[in-house]
Amino acid sequence: MSGNPASDKAAAGMRAVLPTRWWGWGDRDGTISDALLTELREHLGLGDRVISRPVALADVELPASRLSDAARTALEAQVGPEHVVSDRLQRVAHAAGKSYVDLLRLRAGRPLAVADAVVLPGSEADVAAVLTVCEAHSIAVIPFGGGTSVVGGVTPLPGKHAAVISLNLRRLDGVVEVNPLNQVARLRAGMRGPDAEAELNASGFTLGHFPQSFEYATIGGFAATRSAGQASCGYGRFDAMALGLRCVTPRGIVVVPAIPPNAAGPSILQLLLGSEGTLGVISEVAVHVRRQPVARWYEGWSLPDVGSGISALHRIAQQDGLPDVVRFSDAEETRLSLAVAGGSASGWLPRLLDWRGQTEPCLLIVGWEGEPVSISRRREAGIRVIREHGGVRLGRRAGETWRRNRFEAPYLRDPLLDRGVLVETLETATSWDQLFELRRDVAAALGKELGVGGSSPLPGCHISHVYPEGASLYFTVMARQEQDGVAQWERVKARICDLLVEHGATITHHHAVGTDHAPWLEREIGTEGIGLLRALKAQLDPAGIMNPGKLLT
Amino acid sequence: MSGNPASDKAAAGMRAVLPTRWWGWGDRDGTISDALLTELREHLGLGDRVISRPVALADVELPASRLSDAARTALEAQVGPEHVVSDRLQRVAHAAGKSYVDLLRLRAGRPLAVADAVVLPGSEADVAAVLTVCEAHSIAVIPFGGGTSVVGGVTPLPGKHAAVISLNLRRLDGVVEVNPLNQVARLRAGMRGPDAEAELNASGFTLGHFPQSFEYATIGGFAATRSAGQASCGYGRFDAMALGLRCVTPRGIVVVPAIPPNAAGPSILQLLLGSEGTLGVISEVAVHVRRQPVARWYEGWSLPDVGSGISALHRIAQQDGLPDVVRFSDAEETRLSLAVAGGSASGWLPRLLDWRGQTEPCLLIVGWEGEPVSISRRREAGIRVIREHGGVRLGRRAGETWRRNRFEAPYLRDPLLDRGVLVETLETATSWDQLFELRRDVAAALGKELGVGGSSPLPGCHISHVYPEGASLYFTVMARQEQDGVAQWERVKARICDLLVEHGATITHHHAVGTDHAPWLEREIGTEGIGLLRALKAQLDPAGIMNPGKLLT
Repeated sequence: MSGNPASDKAAAGMRAVLPTRWWGWGDRDGTISDALLTELREHLGLGDRVISRPVALADVELPASRLSDAARTALEAQVGPEHVVSDRLQRVAHAAGKSYVDLLRLRAGRPLAVADAVVLPGSEADVAAVLTVCEAHSIAVIPFGGGTSVVGGVTPLPGKHAAVISLNLRRLDGVVEVNPLNQVARLRAGMRGPDAEAELNASGFTLGHFPQSFEYATIGGFAATRSAGQASCGYGRFDAMALGLRCVTPRGIVVVPAIPPNAAGPSILQLLLGSEGTLGVISEVAVHVRRQPVARWYEGWSLPDVGSGISALHRIAQQDGLPDVVRFSDAEETRLSLAVAGGSASGWLPRLLDWRGQTEPCLLIVGWEGEPVSISRRREAGIRVIREHGGVRLGRRAGETWRRNRFEAPYLRDPLLDRGVLVETLETATSWDQLFELRRDVAAALGKELGVGGSSPLPGCHISHVYPEGASLYFTVMARQEQDGVAQWERVKARICDLLVEHGATITHHHAVGTDHAPWLEREIGTEGIGLLRALKAQLDPAGIMNPGKLLT
Repeated sequence: MSGNPASDKAAAGMRAVLPTRWWGWGDRDGTISDALLTELREHLGLGDRVISRPVALADVELPASRLSDAARTALEAQVGPEHVVSDRLQRVAHAAGKSYVDLLRLRAGRPLAVADAVVLPGSEADVAAVLTVCEAHSIAVIPFGGGTSVVGGVTPLPGKHAAVISLNLRRLDGVVEVNPLNQVARLRAGMRGPDAEAELNASGFTLGHFPQSFEYATIGGFAATRSAGQASCGYGRFDAMALGLRCVTPRGIVVVPAIPPNAAGPSILQLLLGSEGTLGVISEVAVHVRRQPVARWYEGWSLPDVGSGISALHRIAQQDGLPDVVRFSDAEETRLSLAVAGGSASGWLPRLLDWRGQTEPCLLIVGWEGEPVSISRRREAGIRVIREHGGVRLGRRAGETWRRNRFEAPYLRDPLLDRGVLVETLETATSWDQLFELRRDVAAALGKELGVGGSSPLPGCHISHVYPEGASLYFTVMARQEQDGVAQWERVKARICDLLVEHGATITHHHAVGTDHAPWLEREIGTEGIGLLRALKAQLDPAGIMNPGKLLT
């Protein structure tokens, strides 16, 4: 691979700041199984050869830094010269999040925007001072946690400003306090998922928040984007586990103490959660933590079709004792998952299911955590419903395999991009009475939009979050890239977003709005809703320096 | 009783609008038991005689209506002349909510403020048109549901405006839709608790929301105040069961559709819940409903002291399978409750408990609803903890008695006021690690403040809502009225509110802010929080006609 920054001396220090490769996910390539290669070959006519590679770091287009000497001096005076960095690697590494389009642009050496400097505040006071400097010098500020946004949330757009900095929160690290009596932990915003989990585990607690970006994403990012994790059915979405926070804005620090639910006016907390850095920088979050589970049971089932699976999930979501993890794949995603997994999953298993009458099996992963007695009770209630809907048990190995590999999918993307594959995800949520139809319509639209030059795209879908009133839909799509991959995806994405708002579904269940969904937000929350968000922004960020172009267009 | 408007001809029609007596709670007096009379006599030197009565309706001070002919004509043109009313009874009946101070003022014939007219819109379009008229004529608008506010939430303060109307939402009645598949119901804002429950029951569902004001309070009021009910441990607070709403503001209708939880920006829903009519008029709420419970089990326990009860609740709140109802009274409230109940509760029961070593027993009511198997499982988990904390079982009768009488307490207030008793409640919530100390400090402060002329007040406290991170505290206080009862209570209330914010507890767990808590809100949510609420108000209600003086001072 050309342009490998791992060999770059600067990279070692940088990895502490940003542990992912500048052009892709994580620090390594995932392995494409032979079965997946076969799928790619047969459906997309791709897969055997590497046909596209990221440019060398030296070849990435990089505008000169527009940061004035005066601004740089003021920033350095606050955070120290070593924490205002603008070397090539760091500027490029902060130039984008990790969406497909982000990666296409980075690999081509043409990022949409590049920050003029990366600033690393060491404290909340640093953050406040940096905002003051930036407001005075008309510099846009892009809060940057793990940089894992897949919706353009960290793209360093300057807006109307003279320059733009990426505010990397890595140094706002660590647990402030774990209060075991209240089961509340105060965590600094820059803390990464695994670090937070490890420190809480040391006190006997867990946050239980495991989005696919877990390894790199941060506490502040979870809060700013209303993140949902793979176990959120049991542990709750991040916006449900957050009890309080501190948010540094250009107009002061908004402090929401972690007191129990109350009736003291509108929820300031729920107005800052999901604000995506457009109102200020979340510096600390108080979260509800739970005792670490003493036991864990994950297992796989196969359902005869997507309708019976949706019916089963519907029942489970409205009865007592939800599983902690529920993940139901349609037939297309199931076939792909089995292909990716390889081995028996792509060998005798499909034949066995066929023999059991499941010609187009749909994989269901269910997981329970906690006390053994709670696991067995909820498991019993869950599998009764699954059996009633024709479920065939695949056993714990299928569940454990999923659990072991649950953060793996993004690592496959870089080698897929190398092979000219369009690979991206889309997600939404809707009510139960709309779910079946919406999945069908989105899948059909994806199939139609992405059938490039006679190839047949591979769209798959799973439900990962269920609520009494509805559920999420998460689409993964692989197709053949067109010449202009960016334009291709932007066209498809627009088509699907239109479809979602036409169906009354949300434009995002857990990826947030960023730049990518911003044009559709008004159709979801109305002119009046947009007006409210603008009013909040005018109040806290009158100069508009905070993350321009995100959330609001 | 003098001045009984029930004999008034106008009252019959009015009851359909406002079913409570203008000077007090509900349509009848509760009965003061002999045992309670003894308590009042011994502690307060009061109780045997009626020493104070409400003035006659004709004697209530009533300013001339300031509504201009032009405004009246415009309002009548929209809603019909019969729905713009300003006779004496109706103006007085809408002059206040139901706090102790409200009632003191009404009984003395000196309401703090009186609306210039009561307007009854028949539709959401009516509401929008009324707001337009009112903005044009500089008329303040007080949204009025059941009128049960105990924090001054419906006091018709004109603010800076020329006149003020009370906007009675009684005609926005009925269920818009019950969607059994999604378990979502859309309810109009003016619907009262029992009507909503009856209509949902007819479809096999329940809302499960039973605040003490249930009989009169409305869906819109629940949403506007972030109401919590007696069964909210199980069914969730109203701000958790609300999934969407429609809010008519002077700048358009904000529509929050009932889609599942999502990441599409800050929660517009959670910013309108708790807005207390200061941003607009909530016209419809979409709520999560549940299947009606097939079984129900309530029972009473006695704990040896307040500390062991708090420890038990703490454990229960952080384990699986919370009861639906949890209500734990301290020794003082327990003694009073038993006295109010009379019979064996004030006879042999205390002696039995004394024999079991409980010299100062603390009553715990726990209730479970749902499937029998869920009830037994959760009950088993709960009572194990209760027994471990020294609980003595009182049986189902105690639980059922509580359940039967759970809306009764407010009916006692009028006959207590007749006897010169100060009777009021105060509530808050705090984290588990602060709970014991806060209860003790507030009880001590109440005792100190209310020991009038050698009398010893009767302050009691219960915990009615538990969360993993903390719990509510609800104080009921009876004391001897001073000459100036209003000034007396305002002094005590200020002392307690100071104490709450000093302890970092909320100024209100479920009564909302209104006028009464508004002076303390800034100490809870900060200058920045207040700034955000003002920005929202400036956006939706730039002329400031919506419920002036509530929430924000």
